[in-house]
Amino acid sequence: MSTDPMLRLRVEDFLYGYAAALDEERFDAWPAFFVQPQCRYEVLSRENVDLGLPVPIMSCYSHGMVCDRVAMLIKDTLTYRHMHLLRQVSNVRATRQADGRIDCRAGLTVFQSDEEGVSSLYIVARYEASLVEAGETFQISQMRVVVDSYGIDTMLAVPL
Amino acid sequence: MSTDPMLRLRVEDFLYGYAAALDEERFDAWPAFFVQPQCRYEVLSRENVDLGLPVPIMSCYSHGMVCDRVAMLIKDTLTYRHMHLLRQVSNVRATRQADGRIDCRAGLTVFQSDEEGVSSLYIVARYEASLVEAGETFQISQMRVVVDSYGIDTMLAVPL
Amino acid sequence: MSTDPMLRLRVEDFLYGYAAALDEERFDAWPAFFVQPQCRYEVLSRENVDLGLPVPIMSCYSHGMVCDRVAMLIKDTLTYRHMHLLRQVSNVRATRQADGRIDCRAGLTVFQSDEEGVSSLYIVARYEASLVEAGETFQISQMRVVVDSYGIDTMLAVPL
Repeated sequence: MSTDPMLRLRVEDFLYGYAAALDEERFDAWPAFFVQPQCRYEVLSRENVDLGLPVPIMSCYSHGMVCDRVAMLIKDTLTYRHMHLLRQVSNVRATRQADGRIDCRAGLTVFQSDEEGVSSLYIVARYEASLVEAGETFQISQMRVVVDSYGIDTMLAVPL
Repeated sequence: MSTDPMLRLRVEDFLYGYAAALDEERFDAWPAFFVQPQCRYEVLSRENVDLGLPVPIMSCYSHGMVCDRVAMLIKDTLTYRHMHLLRQVSNVRATRQADGRIDCRAGLTVFQSDEEGVSSLYIVARYEASLVEAGETFQISQMRVVVDSYGIDTMLAVPL
Repeated sequence: MSTDPMLRLRVEDFLYGYAAALDEERFDAWPAFFVQPQCRYEVLSRENVDLGLPVPIMSCYSHGMVCDRVAMLIKDTLTYRHMHLLRQVSNVRATRQADGRIDCRAGLTVFQSDEEGVSSLYIVARYEASLVEAGETFQISQMRVVVDSYGIDTMLAVPL
Protein backbone atom coordinates (compact mmCIF):
# COMPACT_ATOMS: atom_id res chain seq x y z
CA MET A 1 0.00 0.00 0.00
CA SER A 2 1.96 3.00 -1.28
CA THR A 3 1.18 6.41 0.04
CA ASP A 4 1.45 9.93 -1.30
CA PRO A 5 2.85 11.92 1.65
CA MET A 6 0.83 15.07 0.97
CA LEU A 7 -2.36 13.04 0.54
CA ARG A 8 -1.70 11.33 3.83
CA LEU A 9 -1.21 14.69 5.56
CA ARG A 10 -4.57 15.89 4.29
CA VAL A 11 -6.26 12.64 5.35
CA GLU A 12 -4.70 12.97 8.80
CA ASP A 13 -6.10 16.49 9.12
CA PHE A 14 -9.50 15.18 8.13
CA LEU A 15 -9.45 12.31 10.61
CA TYR A 16 -8.08 14.54 13.41
CA GLY A 17 -10.94 16.97 12.78
CA TYR A 18 -13.42 14.08 12.79
CA ALA A 19 -12.01 12.81 16.10
CA ALA A 20 -12.01 16.30 17.63
CA ALA A 21 -15.67 16.83 16.75
CA LEU A 22 -16.56 13.60 18.55
CA ASP A 23 -14.17 14.16 21.49
CA GLU A 24 -15.72 17.60 21.98
CA GLU A 25 -19.19 16.08 21.68
CA ARG A 26 -20.18 18.30 18.78
CA PHE A 27 -22.44 15.51 17.54
CA ASP A 28 -24.36 17.89 15.30
CA ALA A 29 -21.16 18.21 13.25
CA TRP A 30 -20.87 14.45 12.69
CA PRO A 31 -23.27 13.99 9.72
CA ALA A 32 -21.43 16.64 7.67
CA PHE A 33 -18.39 14.34 7.57
CA PHE A 34 -20.42 11.93 5.41
CA VAL A 35 -21.43 12.00 1.75
CA GLN A 36 -25.11 12.75 1.04
CA PRO A 37 -27.41 10.94 0.38
CA GLN A 38 -25.60 7.60 0.09
CA CYS A 39 -22.94 6.63 2.58
CA ARG A 40 -22.21 3.82 4.96
CA TYR A 41 -20.94 3.76 8.54
CA GLU A 42 -20.39 0.45 10.30
CA VAL A 43 -18.89 -0.70 13.56
CA LEU A 44 -17.86 -4.34 13.26
CA SER A 45 -16.20 -6.78 15.63
CA ARG A 46 -12.81 -8.00 14.60
CA GLU A 47 -14.06 -11.54 15.21
CA ASN A 48 -16.83 -11.25 12.62
CA VAL A 49 -14.54 -9.60 10.08
CA ASP A 50 -11.96 -12.39 10.47
CA LEU A 51 -14.63 -15.06 10.03
CA GLY A 52 -16.14 -13.29 7.01
CA LEU A 53 -19.41 -12.73 8.86
CA PRO A 54 -21.11 -9.55 7.65
CA VAL A 55 -23.26 -8.54 10.63
CA PRO A 56 -22.10 -5.27 12.20
CA ILE A 57 -22.44 -4.24 15.84
CA MET A 58 -23.95 -1.00 14.58
CA SER A 59 -24.52 0.43 11.15
CA CYS A 60 -25.93 3.27 9.10
CA TYR A 61 -26.67 2.64 5.43
CA SER A 62 -27.65 6.16 4.37
CA HIS A 63 -27.04 9.76 5.36
CA GLY A 64 -30.46 9.82 6.99
CA MET A 65 -29.45 6.95 9.25
CA VAL A 66 -26.24 8.81 10.10
CA CYS A 67 -28.33 11.81 11.17
CA ASP A 68 -30.64 9.53 13.15
CA ARG A 69 -27.68 7.98 14.92
CA VAL A 70 -26.81 11.22 16.69
CA ALA A 71 -30.27 12.84 16.90
CA MET A 72 -30.79 11.93 20.55
CA LEU A 73 -27.23 12.87 21.42
CA ILE A 74 -27.75 16.32 19.90
CA LYS A 75 -31.02 16.78 21.78
CA ASP A 76 -29.26 15.45 24.88
CA THR A 77 -32.15 13.09 25.57
CA LEU A 78 -30.07 9.92 25.62
CA THR A 79 -29.29 8.51 29.04
CA TYR A 80 -25.97 6.79 29.19
CA ARG A 81 -22.93 6.58 31.40
CA HIS A 82 -21.18 9.73 30.32
CA MET A 83 -17.42 9.49 29.85
CA HIS A 84 -14.89 11.94 28.46
CA LEU A 85 -13.20 10.34 25.48
CA LEU A 86 -9.84 10.93 23.84
CA ARG A 87 -9.53 9.39 20.38
CA GLN A 88 -6.00 8.70 19.17
CA VAL A 89 -5.77 8.19 15.43
CA SER A 90 -2.49 6.45 14.62
CA ASN A 91 -0.47 5.02 11.73
CA VAL A 92 -2.58 6.67 9.02
CA ARG A 93 -2.11 5.33 5.50
CA ALA A 94 -3.89 6.65 2.43
CA THR A 95 -3.93 5.61 -1.21
CA ARG A 96 -5.75 7.16 -4.12
CA GLN A 97 -7.71 4.58 -6.09
CA ALA A 98 -8.12 4.55 -9.87
CA ASP A 99 -11.67 5.94 -9.52
CA GLY A 100 -10.38 8.93 -7.50
CA ARG A 101 -11.56 7.65 -4.14
CA ILE A 102 -9.10 7.63 -1.27
CA ASP A 103 -8.71 4.39 0.58
CA CYS A 104 -7.47 5.00 4.11
CA ARG A 105 -6.51 2.92 7.09
CA ALA A 106 -5.63 3.99 10.58
CA GLY A 107 -5.39 2.67 14.09
CA LEU A 108 -7.79 4.00 16.69
CA THR A 109 -7.46 3.85 20.45
CA VAL A 110 -10.00 5.56 22.63
CA PHE A 111 -9.34 6.38 26.27
CA GLN A 112 -12.23 7.08 28.60
CA SER A 113 -12.19 9.21 31.73
CA ASP A 114 -15.04 9.34 34.21
CA GLU A 115 -16.32 12.28 36.22
CA GLU A 116 -13.88 11.39 39.00
CA GLY A 117 -10.94 11.78 36.63
CA VAL A 118 -10.10 8.08 36.43
CA SER A 119 -8.91 7.08 32.94
CA SER A 120 -8.80 3.72 31.23
CA LEU A 121 -8.53 2.13 27.83
CA TYR A 122 -11.97 2.03 26.21
CA ILE A 123 -11.62 0.87 22.62
CA VAL A 124 -8.90 -0.56 20.38
CA ALA A 125 -9.96 -0.46 16.74
CA ARG A 126 -9.07 0.27 13.16
CA TYR A 127 -10.58 2.72 10.70
CA GLU A 128 -11.04 1.42 7.17
CA ALA A 129 -12.54 4.24 5.14
CA SER A 130 -13.25 5.27 1.61
CA LEU A 131 -13.15 9.05 1.18
CA VAL A 132 -14.08 11.36 -1.65
CA GLU A 133 -12.65 14.82 -2.30
CA ALA A 134 -14.85 17.69 -1.09
CA GLY A 135 -13.13 20.98 -1.83
CA GLU A 136 -9.99 21.18 0.26
CA THR A 137 -11.16 18.41 2.54
CA PHE A 138 -12.93 15.05 2.24
CA GLN A 139 -16.20 13.34 2.94
CA ILE A 140 -16.72 9.76 4.02
CA SER A 141 -18.30 7.52 1.44
CA GLN A 142 -17.85 4.43 3.57
CA MET A 143 -16.34 3.90 7.00
CA ARG A 144 -15.80 0.64 8.77
CA VAL A 145 -14.64 0.75 12.37
CA VAL A 146 -13.30 -2.71 13.15
CA VAL A 147 -13.07 -3.08 16.91
CA ASP A 148 -10.69 -5.47 18.62
CA SER A 149 -12.27 -4.67 21.98
CA TYR A 150 -15.87 -5.78 21.94
CA GLY A 151 -15.82 -8.00 25.04
CA ILE A 152 -16.15 -5.28 27.61
CA ASP A 153 -17.73 -1.87 27.56
CA THR A 154 -19.55 -2.63 24.36
CA MET A 155 -21.91 0.21 25.07
CA LEU A 156 -21.64 2.40 22.02
CA ALA A 157 -23.64 5.44 22.95
CA VAL A 158 -21.53 7.73 20.77
CA PRO A 159 -19.98 7.21 17.35
CA LEU A 160 -16.36 6.10 16.98
CA MET B 1 -9.85 24.77 12.50
CA SER B 2 -7.98 24.62 9.20
CA THR B 3 -4.41 23.50 9.12
CA ASP B 4 -1.43 24.22 6.90
CA PRO B 5 0.20 20.79 6.44
CA MET B 6 3.79 22.06 6.51
CA LEU B 7 3.08 24.13 9.60
CA ARG B 8 1.63 21.11 11.31
CA LEU B 9 4.71 19.03 10.44
CA ARG B 10 6.94 21.66 12.06
CA VAL B 11 4.73 21.85 15.13
CA GLU B 12 4.80 18.05 15.41
CA ASP B 13 8.61 18.11 15.32
CA PHE B 14 8.60 20.73 18.05
CA LEU B 15 6.21 18.80 20.29
CA TYR B 16 8.04 15.50 19.67
CA GLY B 17 11.30 17.16 20.69
CA TYR B 18 9.59 18.62 23.76
CA ALA B 19 8.24 15.18 24.71
CA ALA B 20 11.62 13.52 24.09
CA ALA B 21 13.40 15.98 26.37
CA LEU B 22 10.97 15.14 29.17
CA ASP B 23 10.89 11.39 28.45
CA GLU B 24 14.69 11.36 28.59
CA GLU B 25 14.61 13.42 31.79
CA ARG B 26 16.68 16.24 30.33
CA PHE B 27 14.87 18.67 32.62
CA ASP B 28 17.54 21.33 32.15
CA ALA B 29 16.38 21.54 28.51
CA TRP B 30 12.77 22.25 29.49
CA PRO B 31 12.90 26.03 30.15
CA ALA B 32 14.43 26.69 26.70
CA PHE B 33 11.15 25.53 25.14
CA PHE B 34 9.46 28.62 26.63
CA VAL B 35 9.51 32.29 25.67
CA GLN B 36 11.51 34.60 27.97
CA PRO B 37 10.66 36.43 30.14
CA GLN B 38 6.87 36.14 29.88
CA CYS B 39 5.25 32.79 29.34
CA ARG B 40 2.67 30.62 30.97
CA TYR B 41 2.51 26.90 31.69
CA GLU B 42 -0.54 25.40 33.37
CA VAL B 43 -1.82 21.95 34.16
CA LEU B 44 -5.58 22.06 34.60
CA SER B 45 -8.20 19.44 35.34
CA ARG B 46 -10.74 18.83 32.64
CA GLU B 47 -13.44 19.21 35.29
CA ASN B 48 -12.40 22.77 36.15
CA VAL B 49 -12.02 23.75 32.50
CA ASP B 50 -15.52 22.43 31.72
CA LEU B 51 -17.00 24.35 34.65
CA GLY B 52 -15.15 27.54 33.72
CA LEU B 53 -13.17 27.44 36.97
CA PRO B 54 -9.73 28.99 36.53
CA VAL B 55 -7.64 27.34 39.26
CA PRO B 56 -4.94 25.11 37.82
CA ILE B 57 -3.43 21.99 39.40
CA MET B 58 -0.04 23.50 38.78
CA SER B 59 1.11 26.64 37.04
CA CYS B 60 4.04 28.84 36.09
CA TYR B 61 3.34 32.46 35.18
CA SER B 62 6.82 33.52 34.09
CA HIS B 63 10.00 32.03 32.70
CA GLY B 64 11.54 32.24 36.15
CA MET B 65 8.77 30.04 37.54
CA VAL B 66 9.34 27.60 34.67
CA CYS B 67 13.01 27.39 35.67
CA ASP B 68 12.03 26.98 39.33
CA ARG B 69 9.66 24.16 38.44
CA VAL B 70 12.50 21.88 37.33
CA ALA B 71 15.32 23.21 39.54
CA MET B 72 15.11 20.36 42.04
CA LEU B 73 14.69 17.80 39.27
CA ILE B 74 17.90 19.07 37.63
CA LYS B 75 19.77 18.93 40.93
CA ASP B 76 18.22 15.51 41.51
CA THR B 77 17.23 16.51 45.02
CA LEU B 78 13.53 15.78 44.64
CA THR B 79 12.33 12.55 46.21
CA TYR B 80 9.49 10.99 44.29
CA ARG B 81 8.38 7.63 43.02
CA HIS B 82 10.47 7.44 39.90
CA MET B 83 8.76 6.09 36.79
CA HIS B 84 9.89 5.85 33.19
CA LEU B 85 7.45 7.79 31.06
CA LEU B 86 6.53 7.57 27.40
CA ARG B 87 4.63 10.58 26.10
CA GLN B 88 2.52 10.01 23.00
CA VAL B 89 1.55 13.22 21.24
CA SER B 90 -1.39 12.53 18.93
CA ASN B 91 -3.79 14.22 16.52
CA VAL B 92 -1.75 17.43 16.26
CA ARG B 93 -3.57 20.42 14.74
CA ALA B 94 -2.00 23.82 14.18
CA THR B 95 -3.34 27.12 12.88
CA ARG B 96 -1.53 30.38 12.36
CA GLN B 97 -3.36 33.28 13.95
CA ALA B 98 -3.64 36.79 12.50
CA ASP B 99 -0.98 38.03 14.94
CA GLY B 100 1.49 35.38 13.73
CA ARG B 101 1.12 33.11 16.74
CA ILE B 102 0.49 29.43 16.17
CA ASP B 103 -2.44 27.95 17.99
CA CYS B 104 -1.96 24.21 18.45
CA ARG B 105 -3.94 21.36 19.90
CA ALA B 106 -2.89 17.78 20.46
CA GLY B 107 -3.81 14.72 22.43
CA LEU B 108 -1.38 13.47 25.05
CA THR B 109 -1.25 10.06 26.63
CA VAL B 110 1.54 9.20 29.02
CA PHE B 111 2.43 5.63 29.91
CA GLN B 112 4.44 4.92 33.03
CA SER B 113 6.72 1.95 33.66
CA ASP B 114 8.19 1.16 37.04
CA GLU B 115 11.60 -0.26 37.88
CA GLU B 116 10.16 -3.78 37.59
CA GLY B 117 9.14 -3.14 34.02
CA VAL B 118 5.41 -3.03 34.69
CA SER B 119 3.64 -0.47 32.45
CA SER B 120 0.34 1.29 32.85
CA LEU B 121 -1.60 4.29 31.63
CA TYR B 122 -0.56 7.36 33.64
CA ILE B 123 -2.16 10.44 32.09
CA VAL B 124 -4.74 11.22 29.42
CA ALA B 125 -4.64 14.89 28.51
CA ARG B 126 -4.71 17.54 25.82
CA TYR B 127 -2.16 20.16 24.92
CA GLU B 128 -3.56 23.60 24.10
CA ALA B 129 -0.62 25.81 23.25
CA SER B 130 0.21 29.14 21.72
CA LEU B 131 3.60 29.11 20.00
CA VAL B 132 5.77 31.81 18.50
CA GLU B 133 8.32 31.38 15.73
CA ALA B 134 11.93 31.10 16.93
CA GLY B 135 14.21 30.62 13.95
CA GLU B 136 13.42 27.25 12.39
CA THR B 137 11.58 26.07 15.46
CA PHE B 138 9.15 27.51 18.01
CA GLN B 139 8.89 28.64 21.59
CA ILE B 140 5.92 28.27 23.89
CA SER B 141 4.17 31.49 24.77
CA GLN B 142 1.40 29.69 26.62
CA MET B 143 0.72 26.03 27.26
CA ARG B 144 -2.29 24.53 28.94
CA VAL B 145 -2.24 20.83 29.67
CA VAL B 146 -5.84 19.84 30.32
CA VAL B 147 -5.85 16.46 32.05
CA ASP B 148 -8.77 14.07 31.90
CA SER B 149 -7.06 11.81 34.43
CA TYR B 150 -6.72 13.67 37.69
CA GLY B 151 -8.42 11.14 39.97
CA ILE B 152 -5.49 8.79 40.41
CA ASP B 153 -1.75 9.27 40.32
CA THR B 154 -2.10 13.00 40.56
CA MET B 155 1.48 13.26 41.68
CA LEU B 156 3.01 15.60 39.15
CA ALA B 157 6.67 15.45 40.00
CA VAL B 158 7.72 16.13 36.43
CA PRO B 159 6.29 18.43 33.77
CA LEU B 160 3.85 17.14 31.16
CA MET C 1 17.93 16.19 16.75
CA SER C 2 16.75 18.20 13.74
CA THR C 3 14.38 16.65 11.30
CA ASP C 4 13.67 17.08 7.60
CA PRO C 5 9.85 17.04 7.41
CA MET C 6 9.66 15.14 4.12
CA LEU C 7 12.18 12.57 5.33
CA ARG C 8 10.14 12.07 8.46
CA LEU C 9 6.98 11.56 6.41
CA ARG C 10 8.70 8.83 4.40
CA VAL C 11 10.06 7.18 7.54
CA GLU C 12 6.58 7.25 9.07
CA ASP C 13 5.17 5.52 5.99
CA PHE C 14 7.88 2.89 6.29
CA LEU C 15 7.26 2.26 9.99
CA TYR C 16 3.48 2.23 9.51
CA GLY C 17 3.88 -0.38 6.77
CA TYR C 18 6.20 -2.39 9.02
CA ALA C 19 3.65 -2.24 11.87
CA ALA C 20 0.77 -3.15 9.54
CA ALA C 21 2.61 -6.24 8.26
CA LEU C 22 3.07 -7.44 11.84
CA ASP C 23 -0.43 -6.43 13.01
CA GLU C 24 -1.88 -8.36 10.06
CA GLU C 25 0.40 -11.30 10.86
CA ARG C 26 2.04 -11.28 7.44
CA PHE C 27 5.20 -12.65 9.04
CA ASP C 28 6.57 -13.76 5.68
CA ALA C 29 6.82 -10.06 4.78
CA TRP C 30 8.95 -9.24 7.83
CA PRO C 31 12.43 -10.24 6.58
CA ALA C 32 12.09 -8.02 3.48
CA PHE C 33 12.09 -4.98 5.79
CA PHE C 34 15.73 -5.77 6.65
CA VAL C 35 18.99 -5.31 4.72
CA GLN C 36 20.59 -8.48 3.35
CA PRO C 37 22.85 -10.15 4.36
CA GLN C 38 23.99 -8.08 7.35
CA CYS C 39 21.46 -6.51 9.67
CA ARG C 40 20.63 -6.49 13.31
CA TYR C 41 17.35 -6.69 15.20
CA GLU C 42 17.33 -6.54 18.98
CA VAL C 43 14.73 -6.31 21.70
CA LEU C 44 16.31 -4.90 24.85
CA SER C 45 14.98 -4.06 28.27
CA ARG C 46 15.09 -0.42 29.23
CA GLU C 47 16.76 -1.49 32.48
CA ASN C 48 19.72 -3.07 30.69
CA VAL C 49 20.09 -0.16 28.30
CA ASP C 50 20.11 2.33 31.19
CA LEU C 51 22.76 0.30 33.03
CA GLY C 52 24.89 -0.08 29.90
CA LEU C 53 24.41 -3.86 29.91
CA PRO C 54 24.47 -5.24 26.38
CA VAL C 55 22.46 -8.46 26.66
CA PRO C 56 19.22 -8.28 24.70
CA ILE C 57 15.97 -10.10 25.48
CA MET C 58 15.99 -11.33 21.91
CA SER C 59 18.24 -10.67 18.96
CA CYS C 60 19.03 -11.45 15.33
CA TYR C 61 22.53 -10.67 14.07
CA SER C 62 22.06 -11.47 10.39
CA HIS C 63 19.32 -11.63 7.79
CA GLY C 64 19.31 -15.42 8.13
CA MET C 65 18.49 -15.08 11.82
CA VAL C 66 15.71 -12.63 10.95
CA CYS C 67 14.24 -15.24 8.59
CA ASP C 68 14.63 -17.92 11.28
CA ARG C 69 12.85 -15.74 13.80
CA VAL C 70 9.56 -15.92 11.90
CA ALA C 71 9.94 -19.32 10.21
CA MET C 72 7.69 -21.13 12.69
CA LEU C 73 5.19 -18.29 12.66
CA ILE C 74 4.96 -18.51 8.86
CA LYS C 75 4.48 -22.28 9.00
CA ASP C 76 1.99 -21.73 11.81
CA THR C 77 3.68 -24.41 13.89
CA LEU C 78 4.37 -22.23 16.91
CA THR C 79 2.06 -22.73 19.85
CA TYR C 80 1.47 -19.53 21.78
CA ARG C 81 -1.31 -17.58 23.36
CA HIS C 82 -2.66 -15.85 20.29
CA MET C 83 -3.57 -12.20 20.68
CA HIS C 84 -4.62 -9.57 18.17
CA LEU C 85 -2.14 -6.72 18.34
CA LEU C 86 -2.39 -3.06 17.42
CA ARG C 87 0.95 -1.29 17.16
CA GLN C 88 0.90 2.47 17.57
CA VAL C 89 4.02 4.18 16.26
CA SER C 90 4.23 7.67 17.75
CA ASN C 91 6.43 10.78 17.87
CA VAL C 92 8.60 9.72 14.90
CA ARG C 93 11.84 11.63 14.46
CA ALA C 94 14.32 11.05 11.66
CA THR C 95 17.72 12.51 10.82
CA ARG C 96 19.97 11.80 7.89
CA GLN C 97 23.51 11.00 8.99
CA ALA C 98 26.67 12.08 7.16
CA ASP C 99 27.06 8.55 5.74
CA GLY C 100 23.56 8.69 4.23
CA ARG C 101 21.95 6.44 6.81
CA ILE C 102 18.76 7.59 8.47
CA ASP C 103 18.68 7.54 12.22
CA CYS C 104 15.14 7.25 13.49
CA ARG C 105 13.42 7.22 16.84
CA ALA C 106 9.80 6.56 17.66
CA GLY C 107 7.56 5.57 20.49
CA LEU C 108 5.78 2.23 20.29
CA THR C 109 2.76 1.11 22.24
CA VAL C 110 1.18 -2.24 21.52
CA PHE C 111 -2.34 -3.10 22.60
CA GLN C 112 -3.42 -6.73 22.78
CA SER C 113 -6.94 -8.09 22.39
CA ASP C 114 -7.87 -11.67 23.15
CA GLU C 115 -10.39 -13.90 21.40
CA GLU C 116 -13.09 -12.66 23.76
CA GLY C 117 -12.51 -9.08 22.63
CA VAL C 118 -10.89 -7.89 25.85
CA SER C 119 -8.12 -5.34 25.19
CA SER C 120 -5.20 -4.27 27.33
CA LEU C 121 -1.85 -2.56 27.12
CA TYR C 122 0.80 -5.09 26.08
CA ILE C 123 4.07 -3.27 25.43
CA VAL C 124 5.47 0.23 25.89
CA ALA C 125 8.70 0.63 23.98
CA ARG C 126 10.86 2.78 21.74
CA TYR C 127 12.19 2.09 18.28
CA GLU C 128 15.80 3.16 17.68
CA ALA C 129 16.61 2.28 14.09
CA SER C 130 19.19 2.91 11.44
CA LEU C 131 17.69 2.80 7.95
CA VAL C 132 19.18 2.80 4.47
CA GLU C 133 17.49 4.04 1.31
CA ALA C 134 16.01 1.29 -0.86
CA GLY C 135 14.37 2.86 -3.92
CA GLU C 136 11.41 4.90 -2.74
CA THR C 137 11.37 3.21 0.63
CA PHE C 138 13.90 2.02 3.24
CA GLN C 139 15.43 -1.09 4.70
CA ILE C 140 16.46 -1.64 8.27
CA SER C 141 20.17 -1.88 8.85
CA GLN C 142 19.78 -2.00 12.59
CA MET C 143 16.76 -1.89 14.84
CA ARG C 144 16.70 -1.76 18.60
CA VAL C 145 13.36 -2.09 20.34
CA VAL C 146 13.90 -0.83 23.87
CA VAL C 147 11.01 -2.03 26.00
CA ASP C 148 9.89 -0.27 29.17
CA SER C 149 7.46 -3.10 29.87
CA TYR C 150 9.38 -6.28 30.45
CA GLY C 151 7.97 -7.21 33.85
CA ILE C 152 4.77 -8.78 32.67
CA ASP C 153 3.75 -10.50 29.49
CA THR C 154 7.34 -10.89 28.44
CA MET C 155 6.32 -13.61 26.03
CA LEU C 156 7.60 -12.36 22.71
CA ALA C 157 6.17 -14.88 20.27
CA VAL C 158 6.01 -12.31 17.47
CA PRO C 159 8.37 -9.51 16.45
CA LEU C 160 7.82 -5.96 17.65
